[in-house]
Amino acid sequence: MKIGLIGLGKMGLNLALNMKDKNHQVIVYNRSPEKTREAEKRGLEGAYSLQELITKLAPPRVVWLMISAGAAVDEIIASLEPLLDKGDIIIDGGNSNYRDTLRRYGKLKEKGLNFVDIGTSGGIFGARRGACMMVGAEPEIFAVIEPLVSDACVKDGYLHTGEVGSGHFVKMIHNGIEYGMLQAIAEGFEILEKSRFDFDYEKIARLWNNGSVIRGWLMELLERAFAKDAKLDAIKGEIDSSGEGLWTVEEALRLGVPAHIIAGSLFVRYRSKQDDTFSGKVIAALRNEFGGHKVTPKE
Amino acid sequence: MKIGLIGLGKMGLNLALNMKDKNHQVIVYNRSPEKTREAEKRGLEGAYSLQELITKLAPPRVVWLMISAGAAVDEIIASLEPLLDKGDIIIDGGNSNYRDTLRRYGKLKEKGLNFVDIGTSGGIFGARRGACMMVGAEPEIFAVIEPLVSDACVKDGYLHTGEVGSGHFVKMIHNGIEYGMLQAIAEGFEILEKSRFDFDYEKIARLWNNGSVIRGWLMELLERAFAKDAKLDAIKGEIDSSGEGLWTVEEALRLGVPAHIIAGSLFVRYRSKQDDTFSGKVIAALRNEFGGHKVTPKE
Repeated sequence: MKIGLIGLGKMGLNLALNMKDKNHQVIVYNRSPEKTREAEKRGLEGAYSLQELITKLAPPRVVWLMISAGAAVDEIIASLEPLLDKGDIIIDGGNSNYRDTLRRYGKLKEKGLNFVDIGTSGGIFGARRGACMMVGAEPEIFAVIEPLVSDACVKDGYLHTGEVGSGHFVKMIHNGIEYGMLQAIAEGFEILEKSRFDFDYEKIARLWNNGSVIRGWLMELLERAFAKDAKLDAIKGEIDSSGEGLWTVEEALRLGVPAHIIAGSLFVRYRSKQDDTFSGKVIAALRNEFGGHKVTPKE
Repeated sequence: MKIGLIGLGKMGLNLALNMKDKNHQVIVYNRSPEKTREAEKRGLEGAYSLQELITKLAPPRVVWLMISAGAAVDEIIASLEPLLDKGDIIIDGGNSNYRDTLRRYGKLKEKGLNFVDIGTSGGIFGARRGACMMVGAEPEIFAVIEPLVSDACVKDGYLHTGEVGSGHFVKMIHNGIEYGMLQAIAEGFEILEKSRFDFDYEKIARLWNNGSVIRGWLMELLERAFAKDAKLDAIKGEIDSSGEGLWTVEEALRLGVPAHIIAGSLFVRYRSKQDDTFSGKVIAALRNEFGGHKVTPKE
C-alpha cells in the first residue's frame, strides 16, 4: 500500500521503516524538516509540507498519525481536513484518549472522512520489528487497512477490537495493567533488596523468566536492566507517567470499578516525583500536637 | 540419583514422574497409602512407611519433601530425624515460610543433618515437564543435588539463590509479585467488561500475548480460561490465598518497605471472601447519622 505517515519520533520512524521493509510505500512528514531529511537518508520518501504529502498520495488516501496525544492531534487533523477528499482515511496510531478519538471521529464523519484509532504496543523494538496493534474501526475501513496493519505487526499481533474508540480504549487498559504489573515487580525487588540475603537480581530475573508463573516480557527487560547496572545505582527511582494510567483510573471512577491497584500504582508514581510531601508534614505536625512526638526540622 | 520423595499431591507426584523420566530412581512415600499404590502403577517405586523409604536409600540419603507448609513439615522432619544418619540431606520443596526454614535448618544442623529449601514455581505442568526452582543451600550440599535439580527444571530454570532460607524467600517474593500482577490484570479486564464496548476477552488476551509489553504466562493462561468460558460466567470471583502473599506483606512490614500494591492485592482477596462487610455497615451508619443518607436494610 501507499500511505502517508506523519510524525517521525522514535515510534513513527521505526514504524515507517518497518512498513517499508514489507514493501509498502511510505511518504513521511514531520513538523521539523531535519527528521524528514534523516528519514530520506534511511530510504523513506519525504514530504516537506502536508500539501506535498497529500499530493503524493492517491484517493482513498491513508494518512497515519504517530504524534503526541493531545492538542497536536487536533491541530494536524484541522490542517489535513481541507486537503483530503471524502473517503480518505486518517489513522491515529498514537496514545490518544479514546474520548478524544470519539469526538474526532464524529466531527470527521460529518465531513465524509474516515477515522481509525490504533493503540500500539511493543515499544520501539516492536515498531521496528513487529508491533502489537489494537484497531478501532468501521468494518469496511478495517478491511482496507488490514494488510498494512498485519504487515506492521508480529504474528497474531493485531486485533480489530471493535468500533472506533475501542482500539485506544484497549491500549489504555493495557497500559493501566502495565502500571500495576510494574509496581508489583518493583515492590518484590525492593523487599529482596532490603532483606537479610545478598541476591543477584539479574540472575533472579533470568530465573523467573524460565519456567516461573511470572515470566514475561517485563521480566526479560528487567534482566537486561540489571545486567547493565546490577543494583541500578546510576539512576533515581523517579517515575513519570504519560497519561494512560491516569485515564485508566478516570475510566474506573466513571464506571465505578474499584481499581485499587492501578490507582495505587499511579499514586506511587506521583509520590516518586516529590522530595517531601505536605501530607507528611500534616501528620508529623499532628503527632507532635497530640503526643509530643518528635518532628524533623527542615534543613 | 536415588532419592526419596515424600508427599504425592499433584506437585509431588508430577515432580516424581518428571525425575523418573530423567532416569533418577525415585522412591515415593505418602501418608495415605492409596496414593503410593497409584504412583506405583505409574512406574514409581513405593514405600509404605518412612522406615521402608529410608532403608531403600543409601547414605548420604536425599529426601525431598513435597508437602503442605506448616506443622506437617515439622512432623515429618521429627519422624525422619531418628531414621537418618549424619550427612543425610532433607530438601523442603514446598511453600514453607523462610523463617520456619531457618529454624528447621538450625535444629537439624545441630544433629549433623543437612537441610535445603527449594521454592518451586511453574505449577503442575512445570512439576511434570520442567519447573523453575529457587534453591537455598550450603554450597557443598547444592553441588550434591544440582544434577537432580537441573534435570527437574526447564533450561536455565534453577538458581542457587544463596544460603539456606533464601530459596523459600525468593519464592515468597515471586508469589507476592504474582498477587499484584494478577490483580492488575483483573482490574483491567473489569474495566473492559464495564465499558461501553463489547469486547472478546479471549481475543484480547491472545493479542496482548503477541508483541505487547504485558505479554507473559499469566496472559496465556487467561486466554485459555476465556476460551473455556468467554465471560467466566460459571465461576464466582472469590479468591483464596495460601500464605505467601501474606508472608510477603509481613516481610514488607518487618523491613519497612511500602508494598502498597502487594498488600492491596491481598486485601482484595480477603474482601472477595466476604458477602457483606462490617466496615461497610459502619460507614453507612455514620453517613446516616451525619447526613441522613439512606441505608440499605438487611434482608
